[in-house]
Amino acid sequence: MAGFQSLPGFRDFYPEDFSRRQHIFRGWRSAATAFGFQEYDAPVLEPLELYTTKSGEEIEGQLFSFTDKGGREVSLRPEMTPTVCRMVGANANALKRPIKWFSIGEFYRYERAQKGRLRAFNQFNADIFGEAGPEAEIELIALLIQCLAGFGLTKDDFYVRLSDRNLWFFFLEALGFDEAQTRGILGAVDRFEKMGDDAFKGYSEAHGALDEGKKQRILGFLKIKSLAELEAALAPFPSEKITARLADWRKVLGGVGAMGLQDFIAVDLGVVRGLAYYTGFVFEAFDRKGDLRALAGGGRYNDLVKKLGGPDLPAVGFAIGDVTTGLLLEQRGLAPAFVNAPDVYVVIGGEAERTAAFADIQRLRAAGMRVDYPFKDLAFGKQFKAAAESGAKFALIYGGDELAKGVVKIRTMADRSEHEVPRAGVLAAVVVLVGK
Amino acid sequence: MAGFQSLPGFRDFYPEDFSRRQHIFRGWRSAATAFGFQEYDAPVLEPLELYTTKSGEEIEGQLFSFTDKGGREVSLRPEMTPTVCRMVGANANALKRPIKWFSIGEFYRYERAQKGRLRAFNQFNADIFGEAGPEAEIELIALLIQCLAGFGLTKDDFYVRLSDRNLWFFFLEALGFDEAQTRGILGAVDRFEKMGDDAFKGYSEAHGALDEGKKQRILGFLKIKSLAELEAALAPFPSEKITARLADWRKVLGGVGAMGLQDFIAVDLGVVRGLAYYTGFVFEAFDRKGDLRALAGGGRYNDLVKKLGGPDLPAVGFAIGDVTTGLLLEQRGLAPAFVNAPDVYVVIGGEAERTAAFADIQRLRAAGMRVDYPFKDLAFGKQFKAAAESGAKFALIYGGDELAKGVVKIRTMADRSEHEVPRAGVLAAVVVLVGK
Repeated sequence: MAGFQSLPGFRDFYPEDFSRRQHIFRGWRSAATAFGFQEYDAPVLEPLELYTTKSGEEIEGQLFSFTDKGGREVSLRPEMTPTVCRMVGANANALKRPIKWFSIGEFYRYERAQKGRLRAFNQFNADIFGEAGPEAEIELIALLIQCLAGFGLTKDDFYVRLSDRNLWFFFLEALGFDEAQTRGILGAVDRFEKMGDDAFKGYSEAHGALDEGKKQRILGFLKIKSLAELEAALAPFPSEKITARLADWRKVLGGVGAMGLQDFIAVDLGVVRGLAYYTGFVFEAFDRKGDLRALAGGGRYNDLVKKLGGPDLPAVGFAIGDVTTGLLLEQRGLAPAFVNAPDVYVVIGGEAERTAAFADIQRLRAAGMRVDYPFKDLAFGKQFKAAAESGAKFALIYGGDELAKGVVKIRTMADRSEHEVPRAGVLAAVVVLVGK
Repeated sequence: MAGFQSLPGFRDFYPEDFSRRQHIFRGWRSAATAFGFQEYDAPVLEPLELYTTKSGEEIEGQLFSFTDKGGREVSLRPEMTPTVCRMVGANANALKRPIKWFSIGEFYRYERAQKGRLRAFNQFNADIFGEAGPEAEIELIALLIQCLAGFGLTKDDFYVRLSDRNLWFFFLEALGFDEAQTRGILGAVDRFEKMGDDAFKGYSEAHGALDEGKKQRILGFLKIKSLAELEAALAPFPSEKITARLADWRKVLGGVGAMGLQDFIAVDLGVVRGLAYYTGFVFEAFDRKGDLRALAGGGRYNDLVKKLGGPDLPAVGFAIGDVTTGLLLEQRGLAPAFVNAPDVYVVIGGEAERTAAFADIQRLRAAGMRVDYPFKDLAFGKQFKAAAESGAKFALIYGGDELAKGVVKIRTMADRSEHEVPRAGVLAAVVVLVGK
């Protein structure tokens, strides 16, 4: 019969692919740990209603949803946010605030298979619950930067675009738009970068033609790229809430600047994030060359914990994907080489010597050394060839002569130099050589 | 509205649960790496046919299977073996042999919810492909032992029961049973420990009453607990294949013994493993007290890669579960305490001092130190209380006086002793103190 294949949009991770992905996971985990975030995990399958409650019934079309054998409407998770809100909401009183959590997991969507559009992909998620002030944004933006800079990426490789749905709401309110119109315009702003003027078609169809003067002001706001421009654009509409919000902006930019990260961040009101549940600052990370999809995205979502049945709890978070991050690391030559070498390779004279070798192999491995050896008795020449191919820096030689003398020979593979150590001293000798 | 709940049989891993599970995963990964196994990963969702081809249509009743939106019959994976056979089979020629692979992943089954029977659980899987001889069994049994002993479990806590479906086949053939009868008897042997004599009911219904004399010989074989007993039981049936097989047994026991692991292994012909696809040695790990389900199980399955569409490739492997392992570690007091302390807690005088503190916090974190600080300006007393509660061993104090002098104060939390370091030397000082 023909061999089985994996399902469309799902990936096999052979050891080399796995090691490349693991490098990314390890970097994310180190960064989050340094920032004092705690790791959690959660089911890959959730009640469908968790997602439709958050995002509306229309989301179901993109979900990997199905009816389980017990008649439950369920979905493979498309994102972590509703789940982490559910978990935090259920134990909000017992958790010390601010709650700083992260996770690394796989997510799923059911989409027509396209190049680069997978049905299963991995994300790092970090969230802060219980802090309403912009201090949480500073912490998360700094973490996002460290999650990428930790791999050796610099300010010339990527940057974070910071925007604010609050100021967009205040601005559009000042221009006289009602809430439904405002949401329509933010949808257009979200699509403007990709579609240009066509982005406003949907708005016109729903709310009538957009006044040309107002449209120009909206396009001007959308193109804002600095705090000074932002302050200028809002100067005609003085209000307490705008003044307070601009103070929040200065706090975020000041805090990120105090951390020395100002070159990684750009004011950019063109970012609004499509998802309607964001309630304040929003941000996205992109590669500087702009040839990749977004690396990461996030923002504040103060209403969601409550909407999903928990208490009123302010929240802000972001997610980074493994696919785009991996592509950027490869483009920049920062993907690690695949290393799969044992620390030592054990060369064994024959069956009689195997007993002694096994005793030491076990001791070395129990001490954490990575040790390989041939399963079958082979000529010395073939074993040295295998040792060289394995990439081990050292070979341990268990020959009849050595064992008769009560020693083991250690060969440094690079220069073929050899020295003998008493058998009782093998572990100590290898620990020193390998430096573990 | 009421809060959402996770689906029945699925677990949330709050940080404390996560850290307990991560300790187990880390131990498994260290052991496998020391043994020279390479890590891979694979889709959680596979074509249903992959499992029915391996285990028969009747398996579907236990699977978390469904029809996807594209009309495909699919299943959340119940085990890793078919997937790893698919992956290795598809690339058998490109992979260097012996292929030593491991993975850590989540698996799913759809069962009536019962106490301790989860619908989602984690397993470590290790397999060797391309080695037909018992050397592969030695390597895997030693790895299995290390996967548990690495946590501090000893020979008094667990052991591995070793059996052999080959010798069972040879023995039952010598008693005159045909293949269908043999499979029926092995099914009874598999259930005997739990059900006693009732285990043979199914056999009698299918094949007629079992001759009492033969039954007693079968029960005698089932109770074999040493190599000597095994040799004695087979002495009446001399044959080349039995002689060769007993030599394999001596090799496995000799190899495991040479590694100093003889006290962890027991000959026990009562183990046959229910799954029909095993073709040789089978083994299971149990806690010594016998109050837990099996910790791990595995064996040789030389036919499966080919059956699933790959080349003819000998294989042997095992899986360990996280649930039973976790229970045993808790029973023995070997589950780690939940530690979630930063390396240093930063105490900040006020808004003016925050700028200086942020610069150093970022440098410390980028260097891998775990650093926390209060988001809001608080009185010093409250901050020292927070520092103590965080579990940090050191507090860094950024007060106005210190910064005016160009220094930072470092407080050792345990004895409240303090010393000053120049600001430029903060990172170096913390690295020394924390020892990272």
